[in-house]
This record gives sequence, C-alpha cells and structure tokens, in this order.
Amino acid sequence: MGCIQSFRQCCDRPKNTNVRISLPAVCFVWQIAMIILFGIFIRYNEESDTHWIEHKTSNNISSNIENDFYFRYPSFQDVHVMIFVGFGFLMTFLKRYSFGAVGFNFLIAGFGLQWALLMQGWFHSLDPMDGKIKIGVESMINADFCVASCLIAYGAVLGKVSPVQLMVMTLFGVTLYAVEEYIILSLIHARDAGGSMVIHTFGAYYGLSISWMLYRPNLDQSKHRIGSVYHSDVFAMIGTLFLWMFWPSFNSAISDHGDGQHRAAINTYLSLAATVLTSIAISSLSQKTGKLDMVHIQNATLAGGVAVGTAAEFMLMPYGSLIVGFCCGIISTLGYIYITPFMEKYLKIHDTCGIHNLHAMPGVIGGIVGAITAAAASKDVYGTEGLANTFDFMGKWKDMMPTQQGGHQAAGLCVALCFGIGGGIIVGCILRLPIWGDAPDNSCFDDDIYWELPEDEENNPPTVEYNNHMRSNAV
Amino acid sequence: MGCIQSFRQCCDRPKNTNVRISLPAVCFVWQIAMIILFGIFIRYNEESDTHWIEHKTSNNISSNIENDFYFRYPSFQDVHVMIFVGFGFLMTFLKRYSFGAVGFNFLIAGFGLQWALLMQGWFHSLDPMDGKIKIGVESMINADFCVASCLIAYGAVLGKVSPVQLMVMTLFGVTLYAVEEYIILSLIHARDAGGSMVIHTFGAYYGLSISWMLYRPNLDQSKHRIGSVYHSDVFAMIGTLFLWMFWPSFNSAISDHGDGQHRAAINTYLSLAATVLTSIAISSLSQKTGKLDMVHIQNATLAGGVAVGTAAEFMLMPYGSLIVGFCCGIISTLGYIYITPFMEKYLKIHDTCGIHNLHAMPGVIGGIVGAITAAAASKDVYGTEGLANTFDFMGKWKDMMPTQQGGHQAAGLCVALCFGIGGGIIVGCILRLPIWGDAPDNSCFDDDIYWELPEDEENNPPTVEYNNHMRSNAV
Amino acid sequence: MGCIQSFRQCCDRPKNTNVRISLPAVCFVWQIAMIILFGIFIRYNEESDTHWIEHKTSNNISSNIENDFYFRYPSFQDVHVMIFVGFGFLMTFLKRYSFGAVGFNFLIAGFGLQWALLMQGWFHSLDPMDGKIKIGVESMINADFCVASCLIAYGAVLGKVSPVQLMVMTLFGVTLYAVEEYIILSLIHARDAGGSMVIHTFGAYYGLSISWMLYRPNLDQSKHRIGSVYHSDVFAMIGTLFLWMFWPSFNSAISDHGDGQHRAAINTYLSLAATVLTSIAISSLSQKTGKLDMVHIQNATLAGGVAVGTAAEFMLMPYGSLIVGFCCGIISTLGYIYITPFMEKYLKIHDTCGIHNLHAMPGVIGGIVGAITAAAASKDVYGTEGLANTFDFMGKWKDMMPTQQGGHQAAGLCVALCFGIGGGIIVGCILRLPIWGDAPDNSCFDDDIYWELPEDEENNPPTVEYNNHMRSNAV
Repeated sequence: MGCIQSFRQCCDRPKNTNVRISLPAVCFVWQIAMIILFGIFIRYNEESDTHWIEHKTSNNISSNIENDFYFRYPSFQDVHVMIFVGFGFLMTFLKRYSFGAVGFNFLIAGFGLQWALLMQGWFHSLDPMDGKIKIGVESMINADFCVASCLIAYGAVLGKVSPVQLMVMTLFGVTLYAVEEYIILSLIHARDAGGSMVIHTFGAYYGLSISWMLYRPNLDQSKHRIGSVYHSDVFAMIGTLFLWMFWPSFNSAISDHGDGQHRAAINTYLSLAATVLTSIAISSLSQKTGKLDMVHIQNATLAGGVAVGTAAEFMLMPYGSLIVGFCCGIISTLGYIYITPFMEKYLKIHDTCGIHNLHAMPGVIGGIVGAITAAAASKDVYGTEGLANTFDFMGKWKDMMPTQQGGHQAAGLCVALCFGIGGGIIVGCILRLPIWGDAPDNSCFDDDIYWELPEDEENNPPTVEYNNHMRSNAV
Repeated sequence: MGCIQSFRQCCDRPKNTNVRISLPAVCFVWQIAMIILFGIFIRYNEESDTHWIEHKTSNNISSNIENDFYFRYPSFQDVHVMIFVGFGFLMTFLKRYSFGAVGFNFLIAGFGLQWALLMQGWFHSLDPMDGKIKIGVESMINADFCVASCLIAYGAVLGKVSPVQLMVMTLFGVTLYAVEEYIILSLIHARDAGGSMVIHTFGAYYGLSISWMLYRPNLDQSKHRIGSVYHSDVFAMIGTLFLWMFWPSFNSAISDHGDGQHRAAINTYLSLAATVLTSIAISSLSQKTGKLDMVHIQNATLAGGVAVGTAAEFMLMPYGSLIVGFCCGIISTLGYIYITPFMEKYLKIHDTCGIHNLHAMPGVIGGIVGAITAAAASKDVYGTEGLANTFDFMGKWKDMMPTQQGGHQAAGLCVALCFGIGGGIIVGCILRLPIWGDAPDNSCFDDDIYWELPEDEENNPPTVEYNNHMRSNAV
Repeated sequence: MGCIQSFRQCCDRPKNTNVRISLPAVCFVWQIAMIILFGIFIRYNEESDTHWIEHKTSNNISSNIENDFYFRYPSFQDVHVMIFVGFGFLMTFLKRYSFGAVGFNFLIAGFGLQWALLMQGWFHSLDPMDGKIKIGVESMINADFCVASCLIAYGAVLGKVSPVQLMVMTLFGVTLYAVEEYIILSLIHARDAGGSMVIHTFGAYYGLSISWMLYRPNLDQSKHRIGSVYHSDVFAMIGTLFLWMFWPSFNSAISDHGDGQHRAAINTYLSLAATVLTSIAISSLSQKTGKLDMVHIQNATLAGGVAVGTAAEFMLMPYGSLIVGFCCGIISTLGYIYITPFMEKYLKIHDTCGIHNLHAMPGVIGGIVGAITAAAASKDVYGTEGLANTFDFMGKWKDMMPTQQGGHQAAGLCVALCFGIGGGIIVGCILRLPIWGDAPDNSCFDDDIYWELPEDEENNPPTVEYNNHMRSNAV
C-alpha cells in the first residue's frame, strides 16, 4: 500500500515539459542502437540482393517480373501513405494540435519501423544458415503494419503525452506486437491478412489501457482545446480519405499472390462502401435536426475496413463484406455517441480520437467474423486446393479442419486482447513516472508546449497595435 | 397547363431542411437493398476466387503475376484517389461548403459504386451459366468510373441541393450511365477508354440539365457565400493536383494490356501538360494586370485529360495529344470567363463548379477527336494486328473499317448527349418535389444547414466578450 | 567596368510586375514550339506502339506483363506525385505565397517535362534508323526527374521571381540538365539511380547561383512576409510527407528490373527513417526549451532520401543506409540553424526554402557515398554477374574495375557542381534584366502581385463596417 502511494506521489510531482535533453538523448541512443543491430543482423533477402540474377537461374524463374517487388510494392506504397498521411492527418482535427498530430506521428513511425524490422525479423525471417535477418518488400510492409498498431494507440493519448513518452510507448508496443504476432500467426496458426486482431485489437487496447493508467482527473482545464475548427476538420478529412481509399491495399498487401490479394481488395472495397452509408445514417439520426457530425464521418466510415481485415482473404462473399461494413458503421457511430462519453465518465478512460470505436470494437468484430468464416469454410466453396492454399493447411498443419481453424482464430483474438490490455497496463505504469516531460493538465492539446509556433496574423502584436490605433482614432 | 402550374406551386412550398428522417431512411433502405441484391447476384470472378489455382492450371497460365489484379490494381488505386480526394477536394473551394463538398462526395461515391457494380454487372458481366455477376478488379474500376459521372453532375449543383437529392440523383445517374454505356460500348461498338463521352459528356450534361430544372431565381441571396477564402483555394488545389497527376491512370485503367495501357498513359500525360500552359496564358490575358485566377488553375488545367479520354489508346501521336491539350486549355478557360456567366444569365443554368467548361465541352471535343482519330486509322500506322487489337475488330465486328468506326464513335457521342440531357431533365423534375430537404435560397452554399459546425476561434463568443471587455477598459 | 555598371543600372530600373503580355506570350510561343518539335521528333517506342503485339512475337516475349509499363508505372505515378504535390505543397509554408508555390510549381513542371522529353530524347533515345525519339514510361520518369532539378532551384528563389523568370529558368535548367546528365551517365559512365548528383546537386547549386545573382539588398522590406501561419505549416507537411513516403519510388524508379529496384527501395526507406530521428533530435537541441521547429521537420527529414540517391541500387547494406540517413539528418538540420543565416549575411545568397540544406549538401554527400560504395564493391559481395549487372560493366566498359568506377563517380559529382554553379551564374545574369516582371523588394513573398486573391472573411469590408457599427454602439 505504502509503496503504491509513494509511487503515486512521485507521479504527481509538478510537470516539467522541457524535453531538450530527454528527446534528443532518446533519439540518438536508439538510432545508434538501430545502426549497430542492423549492422549485426540485417541483410537483403535473395530478391533484393545482387545475387538475384543467379537465384533466378537456379530457381528457374523466367522473368524479373516474378520478383516479389512487383507483386507487393504498389500495395506497400499505399500502406506507407496510410501510416504517414492517413494516421497523421486523421489526428489533425484538434484546433491547436495539428503539429503534434502529424509531427509526432512521423517521429514514432520513423523509429518504430526500424525496431519492427528487427523484432519481426528475429521471429519470422531469421536465416538459420548465417543467423541474419533477410529483408525485402514484405518485411517493409510488415514493419509498417507493426507501426500502425502503435499509431492507433497514439490516438487514445493524443495531446496528453510528450514525444518521449510516445517513443517509449512505441518501443514497448513494437516489442509486444512482434511477440503477439508470432504467437497468433505462427504458434496458433491463425490467419490475419488485414490485422483485425494482430494490429487493430492489440493496438487499440494497448492504447486504451495506457490512457486509463495515465488518466488525468483535471483534464477539464484543457477542455476548450478539445475540439476542431473549420479548416482542421478539412485537414482531418485528408487523413480519413487516404485511409479509406488505400484500405484495400492494406488488407491485401501480404495476402497470397494471385486470387488472395485480388479477393482481399474486393472485400475491403465493398465493406468500406457500406460503412459510409450507415455511419452517415446514424450520425444524422443522432442529431435533433438531422445534421451530420464530422467526427463520425472522419472516423466511423473506416470501421468496415478494420472489421473485414481478418476475413478479407477468405471467401467472405461480396454480400458478406457489405454486411460486415453495414454493422460496423452503425456500431462505430453509436460508439462515438454513447460509449466514448461513458468510458470517460465511468471507466476513467479518456480516448481523444475514439479509437475504441474505430479500432477496438471493429477489430474484435473482425476477429469474430474471421473465426466464423474460417469455421464455415468448405471444399465446395473453396475447392480442395483453394482451401489448403487460403488457410495454409500445409506442412505440420496439413490435416487441419476448417472448424478447428475457427477455434484457432478465436484463440488468436484472445491473445491479441490479453497482450493489448496487459501490455498497456504495464507500459502505462512506466509512463506515469514524472520524468517524461508530459504537459500539465491545463496545457494538454496545445502545440505550444513542444513546438515553436508561428505568430498567427490575427494575433500579431503589430496588427493589434494598429487596431488599437484605429480604435482610438474612432473614439 | 394547370397541371404544370400546380406542380410548380407544389415545388415552391417553403423549404424544410431537416433530413433526420429522410437521409437515414434512404441510406438504410438502399444499403439493405444492396446487400440483398449482392447476395443474389454478385460473386467473385475466376481471378479473385479460390479456384484461381485450378483455373491457372487449366488455362496454362504460368504465373500468379498474370492475374489481372497485377495489370490493373495500381491504376485502380489511382482512380480511387481521383474519385474521393480528387473530386472531393476540388469542390472544397467555397468558403463555407468544404464539409458538404468532401462529405457528400464521399456519401454518394460510397453508395454509387455499389449500385454501379450491379447495374454494370447485369449489362456486361452476367455469367450465362449461373446467372451471377462475376466481379474483379476491372469491375471496381468501372464502378468508380460510373460514380465519376455522378460526381461531375454534383459539381453543377454543389451547395444547392440536399444529401437526399444527391442520393436520388446518383441512383438515377448510375442507372442511366449503365444503359448508356451498354449502348455505346456494346451495341454501337464505340471505343471510349477514358470515358470522354460515356463519363464526362454524359455526366456533365446530366448535371447541367438538373441544375437547369432546379434553377433558383433568387440565388442572389446566397451570393456572398459563392467564393473562396485563401485556404479553401489551397485545399481545392489538392483536388486539382490529384486529378491531374492520376489522369493518365484514369485513361489507361481499362485499356488493353500492354501497349494499350502504356500509350493511353503517355497521351494523357502530354495532353495535360499542354493544358496547363494554355490555361495559365488565357487566365493571365483575361485580367487587366495579367494576374492569374485560381478558378482557372484549379479547373481548366484538367480539360486536356478529359478531351484525350476517348483517343488515349489510339495512335494519337505525342504531338496530337499536345494539340488536344493546347486547344482545351484555351477553350475551357474562355468558358469560365465568358460562357458560365452567359449560361447563368440567359439560359438560367447555374453551374457552381463550371463543369460545362471542365467536362462538357472537353468531353464533346474528346468524342470528336476520338471519331476523327478512329476514322483516320490505317494499317500503315497501326499494323494489321495492331489495328484489329486497338479497335477490337473481332468476332462480329471483324470486317469493320476504320472509317465506319469513326461513324460509330460519333454515334456514341450523340447517345451520351441524349442520355445526359434527357435523363437530367427527368431527374431534375423529380428533384423539384419539395420533399427532399434542400436549402432555401438564402442558405445555399452553407455547411451550417447539414453539418454540426465547430465554433471558430475568431467568432468564439467568449473571445468576443473578452475583446469587448478590453475595449471598454481601453475607452 | 562601364559596361557592367550600365548593365547594373539597367537592372535597377523600377519594377513592373504586369505580366499580361509576357507570360501568355512565353506560354503560347513555347507550347507551339513544343507541338512542332514533338511533331517532328517524338514517336511511341516499341512498348507503347500498336506494333508491340508483333514485337512480342519477334522477341519471344511471353506475356504483356513483360511490358516495361508494368515494371515502372507505379513508381512513375509516385514520382509524379512528388513533383506536383510534394514539391508544390512543400513550398506552401509561407503565409501569403501558397498560390505562387503550388501554382507556379504546376506551371514550370508542366512546361519543363515537355522540353525534357525532347532534350533527353536527343541525347538518349534517338533512334538512328529514322531520327525519331522513341518515348515510353521510362522517358516520362526521366522527364519528371529533370523537372525536379528545376523545382529544387525554384525553392531558392521562391517568392522573389516572376512566373516569366521561372519559365526562362526552367528552359535553361532543363537544357543544362540534359547535357550534364549525358556527360555524367553516358560519357563518364557514372551511376546515379536516384540522382543525388544529377538532380539534387545540380538543381540546388543552379538555384543558389541564380539566387546569388538576383540578390536583393533591400529584401528586409518584405521580411514580415517570410514566415508561416499555423495552417500554412500544415499544408507544407502534405508536401513533406508525400516526398518522404514516395522517395523509395523516386530512387528505384529507373533502377534495374528485379533486385535493383527492390534494393533501391529498401535502402531509401531505411535512410529516410533514420533521418527523421536525428533531425528531430537536433531541432529539439537547438532551442532553449527543447521545442521543435517546423522548418526542420518539413525539410531536414528528407535529406536522407537525397543522400542515398546515388548508392541506392548498390549493396549499401541496410546499416549503411541508416548511417547515411543518420548523418544527413544532423547536417541538414544544422544547416538550417547555422549555414542559411550565414549564407544570407556573408555570401549574399538568400535561400527561401533552404535548398542548400535539403538538396545541395545531401546531394554532394550522396555523390561521395556513391563513389566510396562503388570503389569498395567486390565480387565477394556482389557476385560476378551481380557486379557487372549493377554497375553496367558491359560493352565498352566491360573491363572496368570498381575502384575505377569510384573515380568516375567522383568525376560525375564535379561535373554536376560545375554545371550547377556555372549555369546558374549565367542564367542569373539573364534573369537580372528588368524585363521579366519580378516584384519590387517590398512586395516579395506576396501572392497579391500575380494572383487574384479572394477577399478573406476577416478582412472583409462588410464585416469591418459591421464591427465598426457595433463598436460605435458600444461606445
């Protein structure tokens, strides 16, 4: 008891937001560590190495176009845009936190992807011959995916944490992600092409748990800054639209070559289209005069992409995708209207961007849809070869039945939830230490803490003087 | 006479902009209808189905890279960006209608593409074996194309209609488009890779006719809101540039594999480059001191992409593309200067975004250029196989001559015009009914009617009070 | 002496910013010249010509997917986005020069790419059989690359020149580029996939030399306009992010099919990630309270992409890329803090966007890294075939050694520097003539000179009157 109390007292010391030592120190130390670890561990794989020309001959590959680069690079670029512009701009909606939204998003994504290449490499692409990690285009996509989970978590704590805290959160987030992903995909053998469980469920609960641990009872003091202005809402729509448009690439980026990627793109395309309509419908219903709320349009319209992630490469069928999108648009929008205020009031979880509605709930739904779809798979629908191919019933899993696979999918979902919540609570405790330079309660959501801001024209001292001058004349 | 008069009276009842019942009702009913129809009709095609692996073997396809996905998906994504970011942001130029521009664009595109998949599927990809529509990446591109025509139409009525009207307009627009497209491409056997006729001419005249039917004599009351502010013009440039940059993908997205796509991209790239120079030249010439007008830069620079649409996959030759772009930049900019005001004053057609200059005229020019280029085609230039390949002189059309093809192209243009104007007038009549929740004449171009708006800082009541307080002190 | 003095007097005549004759004249004359030259010289190459179908048969190409279009088109589109949105929006940071930034960028890129197709065609793809230039997707990428060097140069003179000056600067810039590129790549046989030397070093020194020649001693009169406002900084981040994200495509766009493109993308991805961390670290260190400066985030984070350009397709190794990015982030940010003010004060070079830090220094570093990496190449690392393939040791260069290649790379860098500085001085002299319509010293960085500006709401005369009215009442 005494121990907890003294920890709490320690955490409640006055805040110092000067990050001049801590931020550069963290950046330099970690970047140098990355260089050393990359030097020891990371090499090109056979498709990005100059020996590709020999590899081609020895593997009877007829053309350079068979290089995985041409299968996946366009999708990689779309995913890359989602990570940096999509997530970055989606969070610019706050009236005075656009720099922090897009800038810190940039910082943690830039760091996270390097650490992700290492962590994921150790688990998935370590070459037993020479102990090196071999990377290629698929590694870059996976690194971006991993980073996505940390950016989702950032959404819950947007405006309330320092860049140093974000770096720490990303370091642990990526580490947890790699372990969780390894357990779900390799040990449990669940399939999760678009990461409903691995990325969204994990990332969202990780962020929510951290936000719970960092709960600020006096956040009301910054309440006037939680809101948008007209143009910041338009900026946020840039993020929304790039996420929405490129989500088919996200869900298909690492699916199987051929029909797998093709089908994943179609399913996601359809699911997202349905979500738009139901989000707008519920948004309009929720207001007295039927007016739409930009928060719903910016966020809930994306829920269908999250929820179709796991099942995107399965034979979900076009109408199945529409149904998933239909339901998620409703649930996500209702979440913004009812659940977010409830969570803040009763559960002491403040969720700046509403990631619970956009990622957590749709992610869990996605996991469940995946489990059901997998369990219902049959040779009639998939074909014998197609079934084995889609669910990777090969090697040690070659006798697996679709119903079993459904169970494995469900198990995967539980693992994602546990890692998200458990990891978030632990990391949240660490982040409560008063050494990270986060803002006091009355300065949250304010770029002025961490950024040199330009003098805005309307608040320009000379202009004010000029106005005063005019005013005195008038008087 | 009496009938028309009573219709008119009925239409002139006071406006009620509350869409709280109608908008959600339309969204839900239509989305549920989509789910049912998709359940009955829509399945994956052989390239996106798990049976692809067997299809490959039986068709002697050597590699997954031969899946149509890899030929067309990058272009699809570019087209997708044009539809949602391109058209959406192009219309954000109005000072207080950015939410409506980008938000309603999102809504009707999300709905339209589902309905387009069905309508186009019934006409083009119904499998006679099982009565199902088989979809793949090309269907998604075509659905996006179809939606583009409705978004073009939206440009004419931007700010003057309710979201419910837009949904109705899109429902009929997509239906008309599918019929018109079937007649032009399949019955008449015209070629229209980039849709100068099918998409742009149809869409623009459809929108202009609707705008004519919905003419508001007292729109002057909202005149002060028809205009931009500095930053809304910069937002609109995002739309312009994404349309401009990705237009080569638009025109090449469904061209023939290989040289067809390649040539279409080159022709469009060149045509657009020439348009930029002549638009800017005419814009500068039109002002006393040579200043440029953002409206021209935002819109007229795109005319070359429209006009080269039909002929993009023909042997238009690089200089031919430049000539098309050269002329269209001039015509389109002159249209903004002279024809738009003329149409409003004398023809009672108010065209908010000037789609007559950006889509209608260049679309017709594109149709004519296509007809001439087709008629002038020869085996000398195209090669025997190339000619048959480019114009699809196969099956029942195998004896067709290029000159005949020119005639068919011209016929196609007429069909597009008729469908656009005829359909627009009918749909316009329907939209005049006073049940759709459109804004009164003094509240057009105002997001406040359909959107919950954030309090802007400068108009914030507390700030004003604070200023007043300061002011009294000063006095 | 007298001659120089009279030239100087002539240049110091009062400025006339009316470009109503000169701008349209230049646009029309040059566009017509382009049409004529394209008519005489430019044709489709065998991959974009209808004879492709015969070419396929005669060259034993099994599938349309082998068309170069499918290897390069996705990268081309990314590069295209960098040119128009990336460079365009990066320069929108000034509070009142966003129209000029994005609009003139559009103008000169649109013109430049046509002239580049011709100039580069004469040097590189002239068909000796018929004297025609044959263009395809690679030509379009190269034209965009060439334009990039002129847009970099624009960064140095942003806000201080007229559109006519920019057109002239682009005409000469493209010409010089084509010659320099021919010397470096073909005569000297240096490799430069991402153009560290050919594009960035040349472009940056070209722009800086011009800025030096156009030095305005009284630019202080426009000082209050050199700065950003909150939203203009967010707009600039759109440019930054699209440049950052698509840089891997830039550096890999014209690399060798297969492993070359694959490796170039990976190296660039990693280098840029490292740059983000070190830029932010130095930015934070440079301020008393550790606050970040948006200028650094917008610009210095890109330096790693520039510096890895030449060596991107070599076996730089993942850790090598990180080291390059690490160093460049530091150097570039320090450049913004120390070198830019120094250059302005002591060297009389005013560099609006800081291209010396973003392109010049990293470009030179990139050239040096390329030379070292090439000199250190060995058959152990590359493999025999890989070495010949990567460095193109074929034909007349088949006996070249890696150490020699290192020397050739260094020679290439010197050529780029000479062309940039020399060409810039000459073109700068031409641009000093008082006939180009540039702004007087007190009207720089102001869109009002060349653009019809919308009345902004806050400065709206009616609103002001309304306020005055309220004020008098209050008094």
